[in-house]
Amino acid sequence: MDTNKPGLRHSQISEEIIEQVERQLAEPPSLWLNLTGAQILEEEGQDSKDIVLPNNRSQVTHIAIDIGGSLAKILYYVRDTTSPSSSSSEVHENVSDRGGRLSFVKFETSKIDDCIQLMKQLIQDHARESRRKPVTVMATGGGAYKFYDRMSEELNVEVIREDEMECLIKGLNYLVSCIPGEVFMLNPETCEMAFEEQFHDEKYPHMLVNIGSGVSILKVTGPSKFERIGGSSLGGGTLWGLLSLLTHASSYDEMLELSKKGDNAAVDMLVGDIYGENVGYERFGLKDSTIASSFGKVFRENKRLDEFLPEDIARSLLLAISNNIGQIAYLHAQKHNVKNIYFGGSFIRNHVQTMHTLTYAIKFWSNQTMNAYFLRHEGYLGVFGAFLKYARAESNVPVPPIS
Amino acid sequence: MDTNKPGLRHSQISEEIIEQVERQLAEPPSLWLNLTGAQILEEEGQDSKDIVLPNNRSQVTHIAIDIGGSLAKILYYVRDTTSPSSSSSEVHENVSDRGGRLSFVKFETSKIDDCIQLMKQLIQDHARESRRKPVTVMATGGGAYKFYDRMSEELNVEVIREDEMECLIKGLNYLVSCIPGEVFMLNPETCEMAFEEQFHDEKYPHMLVNIGSGVSILKVTGPSKFERIGGSSLGGGTLWGLLSLLTHASSYDEMLELSKKGDNAAVDMLVGDIYGENVGYERFGLKDSTIASSFGKVFRENKRLDEFLPEDIARSLLLAISNNIGQIAYLHAQKHNVKNIYFGGSFIRNHVQTMHTLTYAIKFWSNQTMNAYFLRHEGYLGVFGAFLKYARAESNVPVPPIS
Repeated sequence: MDTNKPGLRHSQISEEIIEQVERQLAEPPSLWLNLTGAQILEEEGQDSKDIVLPNNRSQVTHIAIDIGGSLAKILYYVRDTTSPSSSSSEVHENVSDRGGRLSFVKFETSKIDDCIQLMKQLIQDHARESRRKPVTVMATGGGAYKFYDRMSEELNVEVIREDEMECLIKGLNYLVSCIPGEVFMLNPETCEMAFEEQFHDEKYPHMLVNIGSGVSILKVTGPSKFERIGGSSLGGGTLWGLLSLLTHASSYDEMLELSKKGDNAAVDMLVGDIYGENVGYERFGLKDSTIASSFGKVFRENKRLDEFLPEDIARSLLLAISNNIGQIAYLHAQKHNVKNIYFGGSFIRNHVQTMHTLTYAIKFWSNQTMNAYFLRHEGYLGVFGAFLKYARAESNVPVPPIS
Repeated sequence: MDTNKPGLRHSQISEEIIEQVERQLAEPPSLWLNLTGAQILEEEGQDSKDIVLPNNRSQVTHIAIDIGGSLAKILYYVRDTTSPSSSSSEVHENVSDRGGRLSFVKFETSKIDDCIQLMKQLIQDHARESRRKPVTVMATGGGAYKFYDRMSEELNVEVIREDEMECLIKGLNYLVSCIPGEVFMLNPETCEMAFEEQFHDEKYPHMLVNIGSGVSILKVTGPSKFERIGGSSLGGGTLWGLLSLLTHASSYDEMLELSKKGDNAAVDMLVGDIYGENVGYERFGLKDSTIASSFGKVFRENKRLDEFLPEDIARSLLLAISNNIGQIAYLHAQKHNVKNIYFGGSFIRNHVQTMHTLTYAIKFWSNQTMNAYFLRHEGYLGVFGAFLKYARAESNVPVPPIS
């Protein structure tokens, strides 16, 4: 494998690193999926999250689902059948020699019917392709419990439930370690993404702040060693819920679009609004533009909802919730002596304003000593972890080691 | 002075304690106001905050104002002229021998005109009573800067500006030390108020979490030694602002009344809503009833604002903001190794649900090792501090020591 091939610097991964990961992530059974050469698929104009695995030869007989409070995510493997392999001389019935791809799909949890329908379809497709082994569903998130009976009955396959937090951590570990171009930081000045090409010097401990409907904060001290050290009920569900009452936006993406155009100073009370302009409260590092009170101008000005711009409301609420999460994350990191903080969960959605606010908060409060990391698959940590948790101990197909 | 007089246990204060306070608060000039025997006035059916000072003989020639982002508070002294003294043989022209009372009034900052009007009236009344010395206005809060020129011009008296945080701390110190029945805790089980009759064993360090429009967190290590260690933009202004957009309530008291009747489970996503009933997520101490996401049910259920009860919305938002402040307060207290946390500011308004949520948060996260204290004059710390900052060095009237 030529890891120095031009243009592929971000998309391939060296043998040395793979070995390092193998040692770090040594958990029985060893990983059966060949992630060598994994590459995030870039399709122009499309927000694809698919990951191409050109070197995977093992047959995949399971799908994974992570059902959260607001969103459900499905992850499944698709063999690449587009053209015959030029390098392989043998073609086995059930083994692709062209590799394949990991496909990620998300639904609103309220549309669980559609979600189950997709799984049914995937199970039927699999049955047509191969009769050797039935599909297994790896399920995580609270909905793995809530919808367990329904999935078992309607899908008529084995459904294995996996702990939500364990899946998050496993997903995070493998995404960080094995998927090039997955992890990045945001430059707080220019808002440019800076991709991490190498492992951090200190991999452990780190912290995962997973922002879904609510927030979970996990401290990770080893490949499968972690504890839930905190959380907050002010998360994505709060933003989506309040904005769906306060604006005309009917989807989260619309809300994020609104927030891009808004000016929070129309609803937030700034230090300058209280002290007057050019006075500030510098003694305590509070500038004129510091938000003293989110939505603090609304009551004072005695205006009705239709007298405010939905853009301004969206911007204010996004800032309020992101700032708050950033502050709580910093305080937990400080308490537990952790420097590197990964932000995951569907709240972020690679939205620059959100990532900037979180980065700024961490940098500001930690006096530049802590780092905020983001992930391309930020909302899919749990489903990726559940997918990888599938153990192929009973499989007839040989388990290829990571190499 | 008979400190053992029955029925006055809470309302008077021993010489020994006064001496202790005097030592602890030794700041030149010594306190010119005699707080011995101070008593919070209880008037049936009235939410009075007035403090009776039966032993004060000094003439008071100033008023204090604290102008925050949402609320402005005025504090002035009224001589007791109801009946002649039976114990005093001399009556001086300008010195009351019956003591007097401290009167507290609050306005919305948007009604600053009414506020200035009251100050004008007080200044005129003073001028009629005594011509010896003009009134001084002690002003604090951001509005002391924003409205300085206007107050100076319209009132035509000296306006002295004092630092907001210094006033908060001075006000807190004197309220805690000198006003019996001022400080209390809330029993998290029964919601009963438990009044503090004695000083804490460890007076310093303590923390003040002042919740006005926004939140300021101060660590206090001595009578006038403190630093601002944190804050949050999610405070009273956020609650008032969002509820004025989401409900028909037109005053903060109406919002609090609404919240008493509401059920937050109608809008909040609970752990049980995600995992299904009786499953929970006990591994991480998350019960069925734990709020996973504030307002998390709203977007999922795709309902309009008029399909929710304003009571439920008010309850949810009050819980969300109180919980969040409690958590941030705990994290700061932990970081700074502080056990005793005072909650002040007009957000609290002695509302049982709010105080219960804050108490519960502190007790829960600190594993019962920290204490949450509340104050009868929670919203008047700053104005009380500004009032006490008035130095009578130039006065002709003798300065009576605290005794």
